[in-house]
Amino acid sequence: MFKTVRGMRDLLPIDAERMRHVEQVSRTVSKLYGYEEIITPVLESYDLLAAKTSEEIRERMYTFKDLGGRKVALRPEFTASVARLVASKLRNEPKPMRLFSVGSLYRYDEPQYGRFREFWQANYELFGSTRPEADAEILILTNDLLKRLGLQNYRFKIGHTEILRGILNQEGLDERKQNSVRQLLDKKSWAEALAVARDADVSQKCLTTLERLFETRGEDAFQVLEGVKETVQEYESAVAAVENLWKILELVKDSGAQLDVMVEAGFARGLEYYTGMIFEPYVPEVDVALGGGGRYDKLIQLFGGESIPAVGVAQGIDRIVLSLKKQGVSPKAAKELSVVVISVKNESMAKALELSDVLRKAGLPVEVAVMGRSISRALADADRRGVAYAVIVGPEELKEEKVVLREMKKSKQRTVEISNLTEEILAGSK
Amino acid sequence: MFKTVRGMRDLLPIDAERMRHVEQVSRTVSKLYGYEEIITPVLESYDLLAAKTSEEIRERMYTFKDLGGRKVALRPEFTASVARLVASKLRNEPKPMRLFSVGSLYRYDEPQYGRFREFWQANYELFGSTRPEADAEILILTNDLLKRLGLQNYRFKIGHTEILRGILNQEGLDERKQNSVRQLLDKKSWAEALAVARDADVSQKCLTTLERLFETRGEDAFQVLEGVKETVQEYESAVAAVENLWKILELVKDSGAQLDVMVEAGFARGLEYYTGMIFEPYVPEVDVALGGGGRYDKLIQLFGGESIPAVGVAQGIDRIVLSLKKQGVSPKAAKELSVVVISVKNESMAKALELSDVLRKAGLPVEVAVMGRSISRALADADRRGVAYAVIVGPEELKEEKVVLREMKKSKQRTVEISNLTEEILAGSK
Repeated sequence: MFKTVRGMRDLLPIDAERMRHVEQVSRTVSKLYGYEEIITPVLESYDLLAAKTSEEIRERMYTFKDLGGRKVALRPEFTASVARLVASKLRNEPKPMRLFSVGSLYRYDEPQYGRFREFWQANYELFGSTRPEADAEILILTNDLLKRLGLQNYRFKIGHTEILRGILNQEGLDERKQNSVRQLLDKKSWAEALAVARDADVSQKCLTTLERLFETRGEDAFQVLEGVKETVQEYESAVAAVENLWKILELVKDSGAQLDVMVEAGFARGLEYYTGMIFEPYVPEVDVALGGGGRYDKLIQLFGGESIPAVGVAQGIDRIVLSLKKQGVSPKAAKELSVVVISVKNESMAKALELSDVLRKAGLPVEVAVMGRSISRALADADRRGVAYAVIVGPEELKEEKVVLREMKKSKQRTVEISNLTEEILAGSK
Repeated sequence: MFKTVRGMRDLLPIDAERMRHVEQVSRTVSKLYGYEEIITPVLESYDLLAAKTSEEIRERMYTFKDLGGRKVALRPEFTASVARLVASKLRNEPKPMRLFSVGSLYRYDEPQYGRFREFWQANYELFGSTRPEADAEILILTNDLLKRLGLQNYRFKIGHTEILRGILNQEGLDERKQNSVRQLLDKKSWAEALAVARDADVSQKCLTTLERLFETRGEDAFQVLEGVKETVQEYESAVAAVENLWKILELVKDSGAQLDVMVEAGFARGLEYYTGMIFEPYVPEVDVALGGGGRYDKLIQLFGGESIPAVGVAQGIDRIVLSLKKQGVSPKAAKELSVVVISVKNESMAKALELSDVLRKAGLPVEVAVMGRSISRALADADRRGVAYAVIVGPEELKEEKVVLREMKKSKQRTVEISNLTEEILAGSK
């Protein structure tokens, strides 16, 4: 008996519907905010995908040679593909440019709760603007998406990469050491992160500053930022970073978008390419972030393009689906109005098919009974499936241009004119 | 500069929209006909995918070992994955069972017109029924999909695998030789197909019958089938096959579905697993089939399941998109109602974000000006993008709870109450 490959999943109808629902709402949001959809291949050159991702992701890519000997891999994230496009085919497009991608990604992670080797993301990226309203838009859009999906109690963890970078640059730490600090912070290993800084001979002032920073977090964003600003006051770029984050969050707040935030001064995302505000949405029911985003002004350059500022977010569709499930939020039932059309005899089958077409043109989901079963067995099957109406097409009634319409739940049936059939079903379902 | 891997494509916004439109209409059709969507992984075990596909496809699969040493491949078609599910997790589901899948598939074919190494299909399969109304449903559904998409002048090439199989079985040809006849016919190499039969020492009657069969085709389905029935009269199962196809096409016709058909007695599809009616839709503008389908009653058994009759169709999304493009059929323009919201000063930006949210709640696509440009430059940019309305948010007007609304095409603007803004835009766009 064949099985799925380890780490891969089948989504059966209920789960597939949840996943397509989140995808579809993501697409609606992309249109409402002016993000144009692009579709890039699942298979990209290894060199592209490996170029700017973290080592952690790089080692877990599905990498192989194609039949032409090219070293290729399945994309582990959208960013490299989108950056490739922005640096090449889309390089002359006027700015701002807003792009949306949605699809499956692949990482050979150890399968565990909420983590799969094939998973889906909806990705929004805004290119061309360095201004805080662009950052604010990405936060507002993410909030809008999660709210439209009916998610409850979600919260944004928010930080700014340049607070830490401003301090460590001023202390003269090289990029490699800064990365290792960042990665330790991403794993919440604050003590180890401090140890790396200490080993790099940073000043005592720096150590005190970092120590205080790593402890600073809170729900009152502006109060927290006030404190952080004081803590980092001797590091000029760090102060500018705090002011930038302040401006972004002020815009979000004054726009009326009600975001539940948790500002963390020592928050770092694993990827090296962020250069500004960073965030991750969480719900209490699920231990992992539902997505993540931020600003990455230097990325496009690294893919051979001009320097183009960018801010974006990747929404983890699987994790959002998981959270909605845990919170008991379902997409509305789809089967409410469904109809089964049953032909009494072979001679009336063509008419049954014809009537099905008429009902579908009115937007009704229609299943035709195709098993050649007796009426009573076909009705029992329709009942079990939770179908709302059965239309029974028999030669006797057809002579008078009529059919039998049965309300399944009430087990009540009546003879209706074919010309009124659609109306009767639509009226009865209100 | 990085590029896509050879044979892979980027779909830029216009093409991505066309492709998502066809996908979305396919999904709508699946719901209207009661086909439930399932999502299976892109990556499957090599053994599963190689089990019942043709050698031609098998050799062109993207095959490799994953980091756990498993031999895996990217799916070249949906059938094996769906069959796996039907033979395992879905084996106890009551019949009929209607399943829908849509997604990307991978074949290392030589890139050429209308053929890509990553391509999309929408796949409909009906399990459990041997009856002609099931075959008819698949034909009607395909016709419905193509019609809803606005495709013109498409035609169904239709045949029945058991006409040929009935003859060759009665003549005692083994499966391997029958396959080679079938594959030659699929390539329209009629003379070579006859030669294989001749070499296999079939009777002279058989050769005459085949020769006549291969020449038999026509648009008047019932006239053609009448002729075929006479030609194959000494081969009992072939006669039964003709009668089966007759019944299917009669149901389709009597249901009122107007299918343009071309019945070909010598029509064979490459895949060995078909066991009944087979078909492919074509348009004059494109040389390749837009999809293909038929009946395959023995397939599930080959994947370790019970014997479950099945009929289905795979719609080639890329080829449908290509045909619609060639015929000049576009999905309706999406930008008609779009709005850009421009803040005159930094102080009014939060209000601009707030108004954007209000407009989006009314379903309007809204872009916020995020480049910090002057009003005139922002308006010029909106003009270039074909935006319908600009909302200009300035401190002066805000004092009176007003904004400036500009109709871009007419270059006309007026001051409107914020409380009426949505209405004014929606009214003006009718």
